[in-house]
Amino acid sequence: MAVKTDHALERLVFFSDAVFAIAITLLVIEIHAPHLPPNASDLAHLQALADLIPSFIGYFLSFAVIGLFWMGHHRAFTLAAHYHPRILKWNIALLAVIAFMPFATAYSSANWFERVPTIAYCATMLLAALLNFQTNRIATSPPMVGAAVDPQDIRYVRQRGLSVILGSASAVVAAAFLSPKFGQGALATIPLWRLVLTRLAK
Amino acid sequence: MAVKTDHALERLVFFSDAVFAIAITLLVIEIHAPHLPPNASDLAHLQALADLIPSFIGYFLSFAVIGLFWMGHHRAFTLAAHYHPRILKWNIALLAVIAFMPFATAYSSANWFERVPTIAYCATMLLAALLNFQTNRIATSPPMVGAAVDPQDIRYVRQRGLSVILGSASAVVAAAFLSPKFGQGALATIPLWRLVLTRLAK
Amino acid sequence: MAVKTDHALERLVFFSDAVFAIAITLLVIEIHAPHLPPNASDLAHLQALADLIPSFIGYFLSFAVIGLFWMGHHRAFTLAAHYHPRILKWNIALLAVIAFMPFATAYSSANWFERVPTIAYCATMLLAALLNFQTNRIATSPPMVGAAVDPQDIRYVRQRGLSVILGSASAVVAAAFLSPKFGQGALATIPLWRLVLTRLAK
Amino acid sequence: MAVKTDHALERLVFFSDAVFAIAITLLVIEIHAPHLPPNASDLAHLQALADLIPSFIGYFLSFAVIGLFWMGHHRAFTLAAHYHPRILKWNIALLAVIAFMPFATAYSSANWFERVPTIAYCATMLLAALLNFQTNRIATSPPMVGAAVDPQDIRYVRQRGLSVILGSASAVVAAAFLSPKFGQGALATIPLWRLVLTRLAK
Repeated sequence: MAVKTDHALERLVFFSDAVFAIAITLLVIEIHAPHLPPNASDLAHLQALADLIPSFIGYFLSFAVIGLFWMGHHRAFTLAAHYHPRILKWNIALLAVIAFMPFATAYSSANWFERVPTIAYCATMLLAALLNFQTNRIATSPPMVGAAVDPQDIRYVRQRGLSVILGSASAVVAAAFLSPKFGQGALATIPLWRLVLTRLAK
Repeated sequence: MAVKTDHALERLVFFSDAVFAIAITLLVIEIHAPHLPPNASDLAHLQALADLIPSFIGYFLSFAVIGLFWMGHHRAFTLAAHYHPRILKWNIALLAVIAFMPFATAYSSANWFERVPTIAYCATMLLAALLNFQTNRIATSPPMVGAAVDPQDIRYVRQRGLSVILGSASAVVAAAFLSPKFGQGALATIPLWRLVLTRLAK
Repeated sequence: MAVKTDHALERLVFFSDAVFAIAITLLVIEIHAPHLPPNASDLAHLQALADLIPSFIGYFLSFAVIGLFWMGHHRAFTLAAHYHPRILKWNIALLAVIAFMPFATAYSSANWFERVPTIAYCATMLLAALLNFQTNRIATSPPMVGAAVDPQDIRYVRQRGLSVILGSASAVVAAAFLSPKFGQGALATIPLWRLVLTRLAK
Repeated sequence: MAVKTDHALERLVFFSDAVFAIAITLLVIEIHAPHLPPNASDLAHLQALADLIPSFIGYFLSFAVIGLFWMGHHRAFTLAAHYHPRILKWNIALLAVIAFMPFATAYSSANWFERVPTIAYCATMLLAALLNFQTNRIATSPPMVGAAVDPQDIRYVRQRGLSVILGSASAVVAAAFLSPKFGQGALATIPLWRLVLTRLAK
């Protein structure tokens, strides 16, 4: 009953897409609009906006992060052709951590450059990266993976997943042992890790 | 006009999936990010996070609960092939209780191990379990069920539904008459009930 | 280019379904979970829940209301086969009023049985009913309606739409001139109006 | 592998539609329902609603704005037939700004007719308009655009996109140099700009 299993896979992908889309859009409700008295000066307004800069950075960073995880999920499940119940619990655990990102973002933005909130943010992302790797590994392995899939494409999904794990782990380490100021910045090492992994694989 | 009825069924499933996905993702907005003064110590931050432990447990528990109901709905509607208007009011009632879970979760987490909030949570889940059973029963009965469906698959859906009812009822009873501390824990009896039901059916 | 227009219709229906689903699920976040001190008695908890009864009634009422509008939309668009740009502005106006329901619900529940909030709720619903009628009329008229559609089905969609208008108007009148206590109750006249319309049509 | 790329395009469109739908529906939660004492007069209620007029205007304006961007996205992607990874980062950047609109709306409505909040709102919209133009340009250019697409349709998408940029830029200029009162009103120049562009193109 190939059609039925494919339908199950489709509904799983749909549900996951919806959770990614809702989590990414909910990020904004953690930024509270300043309400100044009617006679407030332009300067007071600019100051109120400046106070929100950590929230704005957090918003756009987490939008990019959730967007990246969605793209990875997208890419991996494009290679899957069959449904297998084994994927379910890993996928739902991944979604639970993705849907938790608005909290991690709000906490880290409200306590900008503090050690514990920065570690909490980066550790949430590391957890998402680990679950993402496992979910995508199952989706691109037998019995789920499609018959005619290029091994190159599978390798790419895994290298990508691994580089997100390494980048998030770097961020946790940087925030814990160097300075919280380097925490989220260390996420920028993700493309570097991908480069290293691509080189090593050759 | 089989195509038309199938389209109606598809749109119902889509709408239900969307409500499940939104309810599950909204759980996070009930956890309020602590905002400590800039000079707060790491210990103060860890304490603030520790105070949120009931909220974190509630979040992940309810994520699993809504995820389970979604999976049950998923499984039952995979066996349905035709639309029938009779399903509508039961399905919408089920969705109303599922969409109510974020409130029950927030109330129970904010008043951890208190009797009334714990009963309220478990009773909400019991109500969802009853409506889930009835909705899935209609979806897997004539005239909705597909022609070539294995009776084994139908029986599995019902045993699963029944075990969620029994587990939730156990949780209500445990919270009311033993101690609220056992309430949500008694939800862990759901797999045990499923085992018992499978044995009895043999 | 029939395929292209059908695709446009499908995407419109999908977008509308998503807005209905989000609006219906957002209703819950207007109910604020009570947070009592740890030593609060069971009675204090029951009292806190009792104080929320208007919110609970408002939640389930609006869930049913939005669910009904979704079902009406569903039914009308099942009869449509072609896309026409004229539907767009009426459909988006309908969605804007549907998405406004969580506010009308929260306002009316927080000020239960008060005249202005009750009229505001019923008037919002009347506006939705008018836009619903017009949207569904366009969807079930040429050039959008399918070629082989039974005129009986079209008549049913219109009678249904008209009965929601009459029931909402009754509720506005009852709340304004009799008593706010009758306002939302008068929505229960919707099935009666449908009966009257069905009789008159014979 | 044409089917695979088409599937990737479909999933991108679905994800975008979901974000548009969620952002548009989240607008309402920024309007806080007034809670008056039980013995409040009808006049006090009407006054409380009158105080919310900026929020209501902001809600319906932003609903129309996001609706318009969704319609433009809709129209452009109907012309696309193939997926290309280049679209991803522009599309996600567009979605990030669309999902930011509830904040811009709440800030501008809470500080009605103030210079900085009005400019912030119009500038957010200008940014969305620029990203919208670029995203739609890529979707309607090779290699994404469909083979049999009428060049007239592509030109229409671009003129439409350009008129939104010019209208938003007019609103920023009007709010900054004339008066904030003209800011959001200047968005009404969008159809005028479209008329001008259509004339010039002849």
